[in-house]
Amino acid sequence: MSVSAANVNNGVNVQALLEARTALTDAPAAAQFNWRAVCTWKNGTHSHSTVKGFFGLGAEQTHKSTFSFDADHPEVFASEDQGATPVEFVLVALGSCLTAGVAAVAQHRGIQLRKVSATIEGSMDLQGILGIDSDVRNGFCGIKVTYDIDADASRDKIKALVAQSQKRSAVFDIVTNPTNVTVEVK
Amino acid sequence: MSVSAANVNNGVNVQALLEARTALTDAPAAAQFNWRAVCTWKNGTHSHSTVKGFFGLGAEQTHKSTFSFDADHPEVFASEDQGATPVEFVLVALGSCLTAGVAAVAQHRGIQLRKVSATIEGSMDLQGILGIDSDVRNGFCGIKVTYDIDADASRDKIKALVAQSQKRSAVFDIVTNPTNVTVEVK
Repeated sequence: MSVSAANVNNGVNVQALLEARTALTDAPAAAQFNWRAVCTWKNGTHSHSTVKGFFGLGAEQTHKSTFSFDADHPEVFASEDQGATPVEFVLVALGSCLTAGVAAVAQHRGIQLRKVSATIEGSMDLQGILGIDSDVRNGFCGIKVTYDIDADASRDKIKALVAQSQKRSAVFDIVTNPTNVTVEVK
Repeated sequence: MSVSAANVNNGVNVQALLEARTALTDAPAAAQFNWRAVCTWKNGTHSHSTVKGFFGLGAEQTHKSTFSFDADHPEVFASEDQGATPVEFVLVALGSCLTAGVAAVAQHRGIQLRKVSATIEGSMDLQGILGIDSDVRNGFCGIKVTYDIDADASRDKIKALVAQSQKRSAVFDIVTNPTNVTVEVK
């Protein structure tokens, strides 16, 4: 890190991340994580999910508090709109993952961020989930993320920040590549 | 629907969904939706996202209220744990999408649900996002969803419910198949 970079503070502890990388290189078993959510049906399309515990660094871990989320479908689908639509949670996941990455990479590169905002848009043809046209997929046709970033760096360096964040993003990978999902009934 | 099914109430307005299918078959332009989230960086890996408006049925729509979400990394990653981790939002999205589907399909098939709960687990090898091993992906190695369902139906019929929900789920499709994502800087 350059001398000027020492004054940059985006609130990311890059040193700790670099130390974690070294530690996990020596102990790959500790790098095996298991993330969890529990979803409970309320009524209609409304459900309540909680996120609390996860496994990592070889032990059971817990968040500082339990995070709770209501999901539902909107009124235009004859639902009660008690929470965000499941697909909107995917957009939140993608935006927050890329944004955390922008902050971490900026810190590592000695770039002071002043403002970072992203609009995440997913287009969807409802003929898929409604079973009208079997050639139309259920999910998004595509997703567009637009960043508005004010930082102490040139436009090219800001674009490079965002590109590096994509390269290291877990959710970007999940959305752009297939993941195997098994669904069982207890 | 059978006579006995008339007494089944899972809170899903299947009639309205069937009418929507008929209406959108005749007017496919109205089936084009655009879902959105706006993510604003707070500090470090902490961001705040909001979900409010979306486009569909040929017009701009809004949720009844603005849904807000904090995302962050946990303390074991030297972060402040101000919210769920972005990848946990993906698990919430998947669980809530499949669960809404279970309720809708059960209503359509005349099956009364009493309890539906799902545990969604995503395994991840952190050697990916930390850049330790380029052969390890950033996202989940795999996801396992386990349903616990109490309903007025045989075990086979309950398993068939869950299978049909997977077939019609937007988030299941997003996670199991690739989606094109473009990221731009304004």
